[in-house]
Amino acid sequence: MAEDTIDPAPGTVYLVGSGPGDPDLLTIKAKRLLETADIVLHDKLPGPEIIELLPAGRREDVGKRAHGDNRTPQSEINERLVELAREGNSVVRLKGGDSFVFGRGGEEAEYLAARDVPFEVVPAVTSAIAAPAVAGIPVTHRDHASSVSFVTGHEDPNKPESTVDWEALAATGGTIVVLMGVTRLPDYTRALRDAGMRPETPVALVERGTWPTQQVGTGTLETIVDVRDENGISPPAVTVIGDVAGTRDSVVEFLRNDYGDAGEGS
Amino acid sequence: MAEDTIDPAPGTVYLVGSGPGDPDLLTIKAKRLLETADIVLHDKLPGPEIIELLPAGRREDVGKRAHGDNRTPQSEINERLVELAREGNSVVRLKGGDSFVFGRGGEEAEYLAARDVPFEVVPAVTSAIAAPAVAGIPVTHRDHASSVSFVTGHEDPNKPESTVDWEALAATGGTIVVLMGVTRLPDYTRALRDAGMRPETPVALVERGTWPTQQVGTGTLETIVDVRDENGISPPAVTVIGDVAGTRDSVVEFLRNDYGDAGEGS
Repeated sequence: MAEDTIDPAPGTVYLVGSGPGDPDLLTIKAKRLLETADIVLHDKLPGPEIIELLPAGRREDVGKRAHGDNRTPQSEINERLVELAREGNSVVRLKGGDSFVFGRGGEEAEYLAARDVPFEVVPAVTSAIAAPAVAGIPVTHRDHASSVSFVTGHEDPNKPESTVDWEALAATGGTIVVLMGVTRLPDYTRALRDAGMRPETPVALVERGTWPTQQVGTGTLETIVDVRDENGISPPAVTVIGDVAGTRDSVVEFLRNDYGDAGEGS
Repeated sequence: MAEDTIDPAPGTVYLVGSGPGDPDLLTIKAKRLLETADIVLHDKLPGPEIIELLPAGRREDVGKRAHGDNRTPQSEINERLVELAREGNSVVRLKGGDSFVFGRGGEEAEYLAARDVPFEVVPAVTSAIAAPAVAGIPVTHRDHASSVSFVTGHEDPNKPESTVDWEALAATGGTIVVLMGVTRLPDYTRALRDAGMRPETPVALVERGTWPTQQVGTGTLETIVDVRDENGISPPAVTVIGDVAGTRDSVVEFLRNDYGDAGEGS
């Protein structure tokens, strides 16, 4: 352990979520850490308005996609976090949304702890709740849903090795929010209907919730794929499935905010 | 409609979540609205550190419990929001956590819209994600859980009219986070075991996550009630059920924050 007497104590790695996109929805703590950290490792998901807040000399883009699919592998990001911390830096690992909701934060925490690097978790506003909310949709509601489930839409529900049990999710009777779920929308809406959910169950798509380019489309388990196509709704977006999605109609006329298109949808 | 020419245009009601308790986890927008609104209607849940930020002359406590169970009924809160807005005030309705996650925000939005009062939703950090996170527990993890469900623990799972389907939640295979779930812990841990969840499934209790008095207890579906009793864990707290709760052990030594007792639990 001779190295311990030579190297400085490692700096702390802050696993920070940036929230859904609106810089006003950063937490006070996240804003302060972005201003004071020695270095911020980020990708594109926090959105341009937040990335532009970061001083160019103290940020490192680990999500480059300029030449196709050349994103930095997670293993390299992990190693870079350790390297920077061992140099004594305070390091912010900035994620879109919340780091611990489909954000690899758990993996990064384990990697850091296994290498004796101290870390702190800074929770954030998750897009899974915020994007529906600013579109006028509460994910729970006493009259409509006493539970809500968040799930990733990246997986193909037709694959036998899929780890998402759409039938069980349907059986909960609660709201289902699918993150990163635009592309596979036809697959899981069919899986949920096959599991017995009513075809007329309300569904809403919220693209870039809280962004200036926010777009909302509403329909049902049966019509939402057409709504998506007619409105050109594309990733990143969240899908809200359940009766709560139908409550938007009764409030949208009086709903105020500075975000994009109110998007009446179908 | 003669009144329209006499009364001012109604002010906006802001449905604002305060986050889990740490004032540093307020969003920038929530902080600004608390500083600038004409009046803030709040209860005790945002916690003393946040309530004390509010100037005494511009706040109204609608959650008084000084003489037992004399909380202001929801119907009176709804009417008060409308009344204040119709007087032309900008009104903040401040909730602990996020207003749209078991926070009655959906009901308040509907009530306001039905009375032509404009409103804005300001999403917040939800305790359901943040309390586990600062205790070192990610609610999703690629190796352990590809979905997470949030449910209220207020209901008695033994009542036939219970709207929470514990069997379906168990079948999802994902993480289950129970809010307001300390008191009924024995009921739903039994319901989940009856539904086939392994008795050794890891469970964590996080009391007052992000508060100076934070306390954490860990065990299994079989032992957690004893852990609760031995540690004196009491409301408000969240319960995290699933393999992710077991990952805390591998990271807690390097987990840093300014919150209360690290609480090794069982």
